Amino acid sequence: MSTYQRIVLASRPQGDVTPDNFRLETVEIPAITDGQVLVRNHYLSLDPYMRGRMSDAKSYAAPQPLNETMIGGTVGEVIASNNPKFAVGDFVVGMFGWSEIGVSDGALLRKVDGKVIPPSAYLGAVGMPGMTAWYGFNHILKAKPGETVVVSSASGAVGSVVGQLAKLKGCRAVGIAGGGEKCDYVVNTLGFDACVDYKAGNLEGDLAAATPDGVDAIFENVGGAVFDAALARTNAFARVALCGMIAGYNGEDIPLRNARLLLTNRITVQGFIVTEHLDLWPQGLSELGGLVATGKLQFRESVADGLAQAPDAFIGLLKGKNFGKQLVKMI
Amino acid sequence: MSTYQRIVLASRPQGDVTPDNFRLETVEIPAITDGQVLVRNHYLSLDPYMRGRMSDAKSYAAPQPLNETMIGGTVGEVIASNNPKFAVGDFVVGMFGWSEIGVSDGALLRKVDGKVIPPSAYLGAVGMPGMTAWYGFNHILKAKPGETVVVSSASGAVGSVVGQLAKLKGCRAVGIAGGGEKCDYVVNTLGFDACVDYKAGNLEGDLAAATPDGVDAIFENVGGAVFDAALARTNAFARVALCGMIAGYNGEDIPLRNARLLLTNRITVQGFIVTEHLDLWPQGLSELGGLVATGKLQFRESVADGLAQAPDAFIGLLKGKNFGKQLVKMI
Repeated sequence: MSTYQRIVLASRPQGDVTPDNFRLETVEIPAITDGQVLVRNHYLSLDPYMRGRMSDAKSYAAPQPLNETMIGGTVGEVIASNNPKFAVGDFVVGMFGWSEIGVSDGALLRKVDGKVIPPSAYLGAVGMPGMTAWYGFNHILKAKPGETVVVSSASGAVGSVVGQLAKLKGCRAVGIAGGGEKCDYVVNTLGFDACVDYKAGNLEGDLAAATPDGVDAIFENVGGAVFDAALARTNAFARVALCGMIAGYNGEDIPLRNARLLLTNRITVQGFIVTEHLDLWPQGLSELGGLVATGKLQFRESVADGLAQAPDAFIGLLKGKNFGKQLVKMI
Repeated sequence: MSTYQRIVLASRPQGDVTPDNFRLETVEIPAITDGQVLVRNHYLSLDPYMRGRMSDAKSYAAPQPLNETMIGGTVGEVIASNNPKFAVGDFVVGMFGWSEIGVSDGALLRKVDGKVIPPSAYLGAVGMPGMTAWYGFNHILKAKPGETVVVSSASGAVGSVVGQLAKLKGCRAVGIAGGGEKCDYVVNTLGFDACVDYKAGNLEGDLAAATPDGVDAIFENVGGAVFDAALARTNAFARVALCGMIAGYNGEDIPLRNARLLLTNRITVQGFIVTEHLDLWPQGLSELGGLVATGKLQFRESVADGLAQAPDAFIGLLKGKNFGKQLVKMI
């Protein structure tokens, strides 16, 4: 094997992302120099934040440059090493992007144990999505036992962890997800107390029925009508961890219908980006790893086969077609 | 004098408040029993929160009952006392409502010094509006020297104090107010660095020009387009103290146009009600009283003459016709 495949950003989307925003390239595997390692990526993580990077609108992160490898988290195996800290066969988590191969000096690589926990989990429940859930739940929502926590995108990589952490804490966990199959999974496999199918056409009424004591905490991944419905159920002093706004992923405004509720219910809304809290990652990942290893934290994956499938899988993710953490298997 | 006047809520408003929502009544002055004091109110405070109480929609406080004296803060003089803690001639702040006379067992009365500070100030800069500013500025915005603080309703009872506290802290204070006269006052008398006239038709552009380094903290009294414009200027990690939503005082939804900004700029928005933080009032009122007594905190009053004028003055307040703290003088 002397070449590998990668996907670059070919053009910025005008509205919906389309396959021709991406370009698959075949390139030479480089020789590694002193201190470097060569990694064969096994899994690529696809995440909603990538949509933001594809635009050049002002955001918290610089836009993804055109004609360069799409950004993304990866887990893979060291296949050559000139770095004493890494041996061939080590599993490492990195940000090698939409690429079968990565080269690094090791500084930003995290060595993981691929035996107790499956390597792909380090891109989900024991990775950035899990940490997003852990940080938002523990450091923003600060939910107490008996409180009601509402989680949108409840079957997704982040939401599924939020609800399970809420249950472990003794809260009532209520999910919002799209479709009966996802809702069944949220309740019967993940153990949420209830799940509302926003596609069933009675979001507000169904959410009211599922939250008889109101809502004390919201973990928001969607925005728009889903967020409005959850806000309408809040109790006094509710907290909102604002994690994502996938409802407006094409850059359109996402109105919050009734901002007065934030005042009348004395709500605190906090937007956050988990990579700005790296000091807490060791603690969080250790707790999440323990929960996965002992079977207390369930997760589900949607796996696309081969890097060439990544654009379609990503477009599906933005439309909620995935079911669980969206990955691309590259080996 | 054996009778006094009071105003009761005659009917709940359908949309705009109208004079016939109120009814002026003449009633007998009651005899006071053991432990009670009789107070002749000098000033009544008119405040936007009263609009919320006039409706029976769910809110943080019970609605104002029909046919009972309208709720409201007052300052007045004790004219008869069967309570050893109060002497005739004492000035007291209370919640006697839209009424010339009040009777109390003294439990909720606060004795004030009417000589160093004019009594009416205890309904403004050294009262609930001042405390609202003090709490929101110090405990939610937590602005640091050099940061930019935007304040809507900047010439009003709350906003004027916020901006002056911001200046005392070494911040850049930028007001938003309606009309050139109010803006002149905000800059030239209150000492804000700049003031944007939202009626001038170029709110977003003018606010951008007034906040060259972006916005780090927003004290929001208005909501709607004014709030949207301030949010659009936020820097990362901006804080919002959500104090009022007078833009939607008739109960209509007040949308927040682009909720995604809360996420991309990692903003914290906190709604609050100052009467839920009574433990901090002694400290806050002491600080505010000291600032007023030493001339470091300016305030301005709009005084309606006589209780019969209260409905018109209140309707004007909701439309921004007042200029400074709206009071009704009753003696």
